[in-house]
Amino acid sequence: MLRGRVIGNIWASKRLDEVPNGAFLEVEVEPGGARLIAFDVLGSGVGEHVLVATGSVAAAWFPGQAPPIDALIIGSIDESSSGF
Amino acid sequence: MLRGRVIGNIWASKRLDEVPNGAFLEVEVEPGGARLIAFDVLGSGVGEHVLVATGSVAAAWFPGQAPPIDALIIGSIDESSSGF
Amino acid sequence: MLRGRVIGNIWASKRLDEVPNGAFLEVEVEPGGARLIAFDVLGSGVGEHVLVATGSVAAAWFPGQAPPIDALIIGSIDESSSGF
Amino acid sequence: MLRGRVIGNIWASKRLDEVPNGAFLEVEVEPGGARLIAFDVLGSGVGEHVLVATGSVAAAWFPGQAPPIDALIIGSIDESSSGF
Amino acid sequence: MLRGRVIGNIWASKRLDEVPNGAFLEVEVEPGGARLIAFDVLGSGVGEHVLVATGSVAAAWFPGQAPPIDALIIGSIDESSSGF
Repeated sequence: MLRGRVIGNIWASKRLDEVPNGAFLEVEVEPGGARLIAFDVLGSGVGEHVLVATGSVAAAWFPGQAPPIDALIIGSIDESSSGF
Repeated sequence: MLRGRVIGNIWASKRLDEVPNGAFLEVEVEPGGARLIAFDVLGSGVGEHVLVATGSVAAAWFPGQAPPIDALIIGSIDESSSGF
Repeated sequence: MLRGRVIGNIWASKRLDEVPNGAFLEVEVEPGGARLIAFDVLGSGVGEHVLVATGSVAAAWFPGQAPPIDALIIGSIDESSSGF
Repeated sequence: MLRGRVIGNIWASKRLDEVPNGAFLEVEVEPGGARLIAFDVLGSGVGEHVLVATGSVAAAWFPGQAPPIDALIIGSIDESSSGF
Repeated sequence: MLRGRVIGNIWASKRLDEVPNGAFLEVEVEPGGARLIAFDVLGSGVGEHVLVATGSVAAAWFPGQAPPIDALIIGSIDESSSGF
């Protein structure tokens, strides 16, 4: 998984029908600063530190037919022994 | 997912039979500037900001036998709270 | 696989229900210094050199329904002929 | 997908039995210059601009049991609106 | 696939039960110098130039239940038209 900080939201009204409803959050990977867009169902907010799973395991989390989603926020980080 | 901007089209007439008909668009990842070629069925145009899913989830989106496609435009970005 | 050194722990109490119980360890890839968070069931400790498998093979290791886990510590490195 | 230019051939006579017969071509990704080895069944030649699919979608293209192949040339690029 | 040169061995006696017996070799990707650990059943030795498949296709090569292995040496490179 990657750890990162939520830095914003993305809105996409024109989209494939199979894209689930929910939040698309922009996450800055820490450390390093790379960015990705992750799907969120935990209600994560800007500034929150999160854990992101990427690849087909993100799609496989959804019940039923796997949607074309390759990054999913799986948790919110409370604490990290190595700091943020 | 990655967010990026469509910067051009690719044409490939000699191709595997299993490659679906549709647009192959060159996308520049933002920020960063990396480039990839994504399959598009949304009619995305040059300059449009898009959301791209990569890996096997892109292939799994297609009905029937999964084609050898590893990047799919899943939406067009209307707005982003962190800017473009 | 990647080899790396465990540098810390991550705690995430708000998480998806499908995330298994166990340790989330921060691993610094060697050489290079990239970082990732890997799931651990071997009781690996800070400073330990480990082997990490990434992607869907990590999720497929779990019995039953594959969880949204994309990195798994598969072994602890005793020795390496090229040093650490 | 990645776009690149074929820069050479690789020969590997000692190989796993499950590796299919065919050409292994070295491809330089454009732009960027990263390199990878892709399996080719299109008869691509040195200097040709090609489209490469990577990951499990490459293996899934093969009929029957998927071979340990993670990069496949899926088309030859005729033209690109953003140049080569 | 990636091409690289075997630069050493890794030993991991504490490991998941599902990790197969065999050699874990450290491979330096050429060109570039990135490193990864690949599973080997071809008896590859230090200094040998090899072809490595990564991701779930590596695990899928194993008969029966796929192990948590994400990199597999699929061949030994005899010759390369672009040199080593």
